[in-house]
Amino acid sequence: MTTLEIVGGRVLRPDMTVERADVLADQGTGEILAVGDVPAGDTSLDVTDGLVIPGLVNAHTHVAMALLRGYADDKPLHAWLREDIWPIEDVLEPEDVRAGAELGLVEMIRSGTTGFCDMYFDVGAIVDAVDRAGLRARVGYGSVTVGKDEKAAREELEAGLRVAQEYDGAADGRVSTAFMPHSLTTVDGRELDAFVPRVREAGVPIHIHANETTGEVKPIVDEHDERPLAYAVEHGLLEERDFIAHGTHCDEREIDILAERGAGVVHCPASNMKLASGIAPVQAMVDAGVTVGIGTDGAASNNDLSMFDELRDAAMVGKLAAGDASAVDAPTAFGMATAGSAAVAGFDSGRIAEGKNADLAVVDLDTPHLTPHHDLVSHLVYAVTAADVRHTVCDGRVLMRDREVLTLDADAVRETAERRARAAVERAES
Amino acid sequence: MTTLEIVGGRVLRPDMTVERADVLADQGTGEILAVGDVPAGDTSLDVTDGLVIPGLVNAHTHVAMALLRGYADDKPLHAWLREDIWPIEDVLEPEDVRAGAELGLVEMIRSGTTGFCDMYFDVGAIVDAVDRAGLRARVGYGSVTVGKDEKAAREELEAGLRVAQEYDGAADGRVSTAFMPHSLTTVDGRELDAFVPRVREAGVPIHIHANETTGEVKPIVDEHDERPLAYAVEHGLLEERDFIAHGTHCDEREIDILAERGAGVVHCPASNMKLASGIAPVQAMVDAGVTVGIGTDGAASNNDLSMFDELRDAAMVGKLAAGDASAVDAPTAFGMATAGSAAVAGFDSGRIAEGKNADLAVVDLDTPHLTPHHDLVSHLVYAVTAADVRHTVCDGRVLMRDREVLTLDADAVRETAERRARAAVERAES
Repeated sequence: MTTLEIVGGRVLRPDMTVERADVLADQGTGEILAVGDVPAGDTSLDVTDGLVIPGLVNAHTHVAMALLRGYADDKPLHAWLREDIWPIEDVLEPEDVRAGAELGLVEMIRSGTTGFCDMYFDVGAIVDAVDRAGLRARVGYGSVTVGKDEKAAREELEAGLRVAQEYDGAADGRVSTAFMPHSLTTVDGRELDAFVPRVREAGVPIHIHANETTGEVKPIVDEHDERPLAYAVEHGLLEERDFIAHGTHCDEREIDILAERGAGVVHCPASNMKLASGIAPVQAMVDAGVTVGIGTDGAASNNDLSMFDELRDAAMVGKLAAGDASAVDAPTAFGMATAGSAAVAGFDSGRIAEGKNADLAVVDLDTPHLTPHHDLVSHLVYAVTAADVRHTVCDGRVLMRDREVLTLDADAVRETAERRARAAVERAES
Repeated sequence: MTTLEIVGGRVLRPDMTVERADVLADQGTGEILAVGDVPAGDTSLDVTDGLVIPGLVNAHTHVAMALLRGYADDKPLHAWLREDIWPIEDVLEPEDVRAGAELGLVEMIRSGTTGFCDMYFDVGAIVDAVDRAGLRARVGYGSVTVGKDEKAAREELEAGLRVAQEYDGAADGRVSTAFMPHSLTTVDGRELDAFVPRVREAGVPIHIHANETTGEVKPIVDEHDERPLAYAVEHGLLEERDFIAHGTHCDEREIDILAERGAGVVHCPASNMKLASGIAPVQAMVDAGVTVGIGTDGAASNNDLSMFDELRDAAMVGKLAAGDASAVDAPTAFGMATAGSAAVAGFDSGRIAEGKNADLAVVDLDTPHLTPHHDLVSHLVYAVTAADVRHTVCDGRVLMRDREVLTLDADAVRETAERRARAAVERAES
């Protein structure tokens, strides 16, 4: 057994208090062995003056879309997808997806994110990148059946299940999977009825976009005379371990459905603002007992993958949505981005405690914009940025030390991404 | 004449295009002499691979409140002021204000901000800090008359004018001033009637908080049967060169008043979200021809002074307010934080062009979260953060080179601020 000691720092405990403590991690099992006064480890990470926090979990993203960061902005969701994003995604090759994923993974490591949930295509390339980068991920293939004939629609869903089964347990167990029908309006209800039982039989959780815009809610209400989440339940969705992305437009009954059934929600505040989709009623969801995580969505609608930006946005916009400055307070926002997102993703991380995954980040607090130290949890939400993360550890392995990413060559990743992005734009626009 | 050449980079031009160009600045007048293919300078700043942008202008802040960053969060404006902020401000000494100002100035320099407008007390300590830090500022004393007898109220306003006259032109002309009655509800209308003519006679512009919350609008509507900005005009405010902070709750007629009279507005999106005050109708203001700048407000309600956070927030929340993803697009948001804020503040900066103040920042673009380079203006708004600023120049003088602040000792500033903040909390809570 090889162990890693993380020594000299302060630790953010699960109750959101900060104490002087060391951490010992087992690099074999990837678990935290002890927190506090710990025995010496085989290898050491000196984090003097740093704050050890749970690694952030980005519970909904499309990591390879880092390649499309800034490609198209300032447009509403459907026009943006139809006019810009889908046409360029159509010409992406697996090596582009790999390049985008590696770019996004480097950015995640640099911003203290240790785990994420991803919906995309060419999932094998993403899993391979995750394997080498060292993060934890739940991945899946986004199945779309709308506009397809019955055979092609069925093959779309088969592909989703096949991917989920193929990659579950990959990367030494750091990769898990889900079946990921794209959304309630891009996958046909009858197809779900026919296929979801097979997913359940296989024991695979389901992740789907839901209630992101009013434009997604209205057709379901109009056609089926029920709210989208009631419709989702009728079609076999929203079991425990399932989770929806966005939930921007959920009414009270839908919030209750999520709470009663134990299905999670991933709040994506930046994307919801940038696409003018709306603001999810996050404080109401938390109050109702819904498990809420936070995600960046893809970098093309954000335009970064920093969970520090995202949890600040969650706190900020949560107050606006509730009309109450005490809503989505700092501990709630930080908890959603760590323990909340981990619960949604089904990861045993998000808390610095014995037996949990040794997925953590170390933040440098001795910097002007984090002075003075009245309240460190407030700082984590309202003032810390990605660049304040000094070290990142996942599964007991150091992925970044003193701002240097150890598992991927950041410069090479950047150059490849730039080159492939330019070539993809040329193909899309030719 | 000493000149500074800024060579090897790309330059963001006033029309929001990016071109390869060098910049030559006169360090005597502080002006830009040439942009493009420039003669050699006496001193040189190599910005190869960097993007030269106008220095950001933080058009409304209380810089010394950096000392109170994270002191109290997650409360609505009036409770937060009464229960937390005013009690601790009551025990602040001029040396605390100086320490807070220096902390805030270091943060501004590190985030590419070269100019700001400030309303606070102990203004002399702030001016002294600005003088040494090297930024450009319009400062004033925030006069409050509510709860004071006639003599004390008059003395409050006299103090505001005295400060404006005393410090105008300080710091080699980098400091200008304004008369700053605190707000329409904390300064009596009759006092304004009696005093504003003296301010006009002295040729001093006026800066005031207005329409920040519905709680500030309602009393004026109830008592005077008119909207606050109509009330402001009746009391001699909102002339050209005057500017209001916030303007969160402005109706169409009030937007027209601002446009017709040429008074500016400083949008403070983070503070307005954090205090659940609301969202200013910024796109409507821009469409009506109002001069709109951006400000962080004080760090206690933000909790940072990064204008990059602020202009991203402006773009994000502007779309939400308008219900339109094309509202407050990237060029609009970046323009508000530079040329817009400079116009509001009365600075001749905010554009990289011959004859303008040589107030600029250089952003490092070769970093994972700014890859690929599809659109650099999009990056400036949606992806660049404070930590991406490599050099900061104000008035032709290099204030930060390669992330090292040259004009203030950042470590010493941080230590003094931490010590003074702790002592102030002890006094406030004893």
